Order: sequence, then C-alpha cells, then structure tokens
Amino acid sequence: MDRVLGIDVGGTSIKVGLFTPEGELLEERKIPTPALVGQVAYDVVTDGITRVLTAHDSVPNDVIACGLDIPGPVADDGTVGFLPNIELDPEGLVGAISAVFSHATVAFVNDANAAALGEMWAGVAHGTSSFVFIALGTGVGAGVVANGRLIAGAFGAGGEVGHITVNKDETLVCGCGRRGCLEQYASAKGIVRLYLAECERRGVTPVPIEHATDTLSVFRALAAGDDCAKLAVDQMCEYLALAMSQISCVVDPAMYLIGGGVAGAFATFAPALRARFLARALPTCRGVRIEAASLGNQAAMYGCAYEALRLHGELS
Amino acid sequence: MDRVLGIDVGGTSIKVGLFTPEGELLEERKIPTPALVGQVAYDVVTDGITRVLTAHDSVPNDVIACGLDIPGPVADDGTVGFLPNIELDPEGLVGAISAVFSHATVAFVNDANAAALGEMWAGVAHGTSSFVFIALGTGVGAGVVANGRLIAGAFGAGGEVGHITVNKDETLVCGCGRRGCLEQYASAKGIVRLYLAECERRGVTPVPIEHATDTLSVFRALAAGDDCAKLAVDQMCEYLALAMSQISCVVDPAMYLIGGGVAGAFATFAPALRARFLARALPTCRGVRIEAASLGNQAAMYGCAYEALRLHGELS
Repeated sequence: MDRVLGIDVGGTSIKVGLFTPEGELLEERKIPTPALVGQVAYDVVTDGITRVLTAHDSVPNDVIACGLDIPGPVADDGTVGFLPNIELDPEGLVGAISAVFSHATVAFVNDANAAALGEMWAGVAHGTSSFVFIALGTGVGAGVVANGRLIAGAFGAGGEVGHITVNKDETLVCGCGRRGCLEQYASAKGIVRLYLAECERRGVTPVPIEHATDTLSVFRALAAGDDCAKLAVDQMCEYLALAMSQISCVVDPAMYLIGGGVAGAFATFAPALRARFLARALPTCRGVRIEAASLGNQAAMYGCAYEALRLHGELS
Repeated sequence: MDRVLGIDVGGTSIKVGLFTPEGELLEERKIPTPALVGQVAYDVVTDGITRVLTAHDSVPNDVIACGLDIPGPVADDGTVGFLPNIELDPEGLVGAISAVFSHATVAFVNDANAAALGEMWAGVAHGTSSFVFIALGTGVGAGVVANGRLIAGAFGAGGEVGHITVNKDETLVCGCGRRGCLEQYASAKGIVRLYLAECERRGVTPVPIEHATDTLSVFRALAAGDDCAKLAVDQMCEYLALAMSQISCVVDPAMYLIGGGVAGAFATFAPALRARFLARALPTCRGVRIEAASLGNQAAMYGCAYEALRLHGELS
C-alpha cells in the first residue's frame, strides 16, 4: 500500500503525519528528537516513523513521498536557505530518510508555504487554483498559490508578505533589519505591542498580558469593550488590508485565507478587515473572498506531504 | 505548414505577426481598421491576415493558434474585462476569427502580460521561469511569470503593479480613483510631472516639454546636468524600487525586466534603480537581476502568439 509522510520539523520534536496518496490522514504522532544533526537524531526520526508505519501494516518501502516542512526559506529549486530558529542539517536528514525509505521522493517546503498547499489539498482552498494563505502567528508568513502551483520564489522569499512595507514612518526596527513591515503590526507580538502602546498613550492601565504574544487577552479586552484593544485591532486590520491590496496588484488571487494563532479571533476582526480591504483595494480586485483557514496547525503537515507527492508525479 | 498569429489590437489599427510554432517571426504587418465591432471591421481583419498568409504560401487552415493582445484586463479563465481605451466586441471578434481560421485556438491576453510572455518566448527572459516584466509607458503595467506561467489573476489584475500604493501622503488622484499609486510617479506622464513640479518648487524654468509624456526631454536635460531632472528621475527610481521590493515579498522573482517607452533611458537610470532596490529590499531577495527588456514594441505580439500556442497544447 502506497503511503505518504508529512513531517513538521521543529527544534525539539517532529510531528509525523501518515497519509494515503488520496490525502487521508491515517495517524499523527509527535516524536521528541535531539537537534536534527547527526546519525543518532536521524535514527530517532526514522525509527519513530517506522513504528507508525508498522502500526498501519506498512513497511518503509511503502513510502512513495516524504515532505518536510521547515521554518525557513526554500527556493523554487528546493534549496534550503538559512534557518535562524532551528538546528538542522538538511542534506544529512534527507540522506538518512532516503536510506530507510528508499522509494520515497523527499521534499523540503517552507512552513507557511506548506500550510497553503495543505489548505489546497484538504482544506477550505480545495479546488481553488489562485489564493494567498496568510499566517498571523509569532511572525507573519504566507503561501502564494497561482495557476494551482506554489510560488516558492527564486530565493525562497515567495510569500514573505510579513515584510511588505506598510508604514514608511516607523521608527522601530523589524527582525529583518528594515522598518515598517506588516509583521510589526499584524503578528501576535505586533497586536500586543499596538495595544500596550495605545494604553500608554492614553494613560490607561492595560488588562493583564501574560506574554509578548498574548493576543487572547487583547481580544478578550476588545470583547469587553476596551477602546484601546479596539484601536489596536483596527490598526492591525488597516495594515493587513493595505498589504493585501498590494498583493492583489501583483497576483490578484481569488481568495485570501487567514490562518495562524491570531486567526482564532478571525470572526471578531473579519468585518473590519473586509471593510478596510474594500476601501484600499484596486476596484478590479474587490471581489476576492477573505476567509479563515480550516486545517489549523495540521495544515503544514498536509501540505508538505502534498508537495512531495506532486514531485513524485502522483498529482498533476 | 502550421502557422501562429500574434495580433496587437489597437484602437485604429491592428498589427499582425505571422510566426512559425518555433517562434520565428515570418512577417509583421499593420492593418488599419475601423472600431472592432461588427462584420465589416472583422472582414478587414481576417482579409488582411489571409493576404499575409498567402504571401507565405499558407492558407487559413494552417493557423493553429491566434493570440490577441488587448489594453485591458483578461482573467485566468480568459474572460475579458472592461476596456476603457478601445472599442472592441471580444466575442464578436473571436467568432469572426474562428469562422475563417477554423483550426485555430484563439486567446486574449492583456498587453503587458503578453509582453512578458514574449520576452520569455523569444527575448531576454528566455529560459527564465520566474520574472516580472514592468512596462513604463503612458501608464505602468506588468506581467508576472512564476513557475513558467503567467499570473493573469482571478479578476485579470495580475501584474497591475502600477497601482501598488507607494505614497500614502499623495493628494493627487490616480486614474484608478486611489492616491499614491506607482503609476503616478514611474509612468512617462509621472516623470514629466515630477520634473515640472520640481522646477516650479525651485522657481527654475524647465526645458521645453513637447507633451505630457515627453520623457525624452527630461532625460536629455538630465544628461545636460539639470538638477531638477536628476531629482525627478531619482524620485521615480525610489518609488519604483519601493514597489519592486514589495513585489519581491510576494513572488520573489529571479529577474525584473524593465520595458515600455521609458526603458529607452534604462542605461541612464539603472544604477540608481539598482542601488535603491538594494537599500529597500528584503535581504533574501537582493540577488535579483534588474535588466532592460529586449523585444521593444514587438514583445506583446510574440507573447500573445505564445499564449495561444500554449493553450493549443504545442508548448508545455
């Protein structure tokens, strides 16, 4: 029986999804690992996966495709760029996987790009060949799909919409070294910062904030009628809508999908986001749908499995 | 012998290119026409094309593909949107062409998109699967190619980069009804306006300007050491570089091609444009090449022929 693997690569564990080639998820299992450098770590990965296979009456040679999603740039040609947040030797890991699952086509996919493909394979974007998935999480990432294909980019920066400049007057520096990037306002950290800044500006005591990305407390405050929270979320929507209006002038998608942790509050901010997009966008593009993503944190696992399967030649 | 047609559709004439399926241009001929509405006009078009075919020992049934490039939006599915600058009945024209060239696959392509495809088929982008062609002319249009395919857009606005917002503080209104679009600064009209505005601001007499899009005089003034011309061209480069840095965050192309009438002065402004792009762009994307387009005003004719041929199934 042909099997497909989708592997979320993290710093201290991997999450393996075992799929059929038709996209049915048979099992999802988390495997704690040391840093993914060296044979000991690779053995932990391949042994763990082999046990998942055994539990489903499958053997390593049943695996025809294995996708790995990673938090870093992957170019059009599959080359992995610099990974700031994870210890990983991509070539070593591919070698170890290929040695055990010798029939498998192996592919790396950037995490936000993988999530976009997952939504296309098994989520709300199913049947849509033109959409942009935007993940509002710790940072802001995205996956751009046009003509049914992911745009990874010549240098792996396709969908780096978190670094679209939305405020030329910003004085704070973004993680990328530039100023005024979308990520500074529409990430979880950005929303919390906008809220605290507005409270300070008005001399108001903010609601208790647990940590730098605690948007839950900001959205709760908004629901309770907190004006500073309302203003912060409005600003977030304004900057996100501005960036989306720029994206539409480039690829003009049929749909925007909003995912990532912040999208838990999508129903709360969607009306403001849609209204601001309509006010900002080129008239031609205003028919675009703006919806919530559907697969949550499983999306990337689905998507990297899909991409490996596509490269294997099982998908058009 | 299989033949392919590429037709530039204009308001008072069409320009027909007769090609081999390999992309060799056999002949280019301009045919004056009435507005492309009604059988009389269609007959002028098909009779004129038939004479070009006859001169090359070909008959109407030899035509396997016929592309038409038009100055307006064409969506992913081939639907033609509103055409503000031309009198044309798309369905009628396709019907008339199909009646005479009954073996031909007919396709409409937006003019800037067609030019991008032309540069990929027979120009400097040959062999490149990821690039953005930007036409700086009366307006600013573009064609975005990723994974070797044009991105026409769900609503035909793919590559409408002339309407990327680059200056939120602009008070003048763009043709699209919004403010601060790239087209207001990087079109021929925009460059002339920036020049005249700077002369007025400094109380300097400008060089004689023949018409609203006379960038030739502005670039001549620049060559002669005119400070206002230098500032206008620097501003144009700054806004264009800013828009390109946004485009790179979406599709991350391997190459930008600058075409259109203003690109006649590419050698003059390229150093400033490249320097400003490097200063603005996300570090990951800075390896992109910025070059002049190569096919001039033949590009769109090549490109619409290519797209019709692709739809016909002769190209992968």
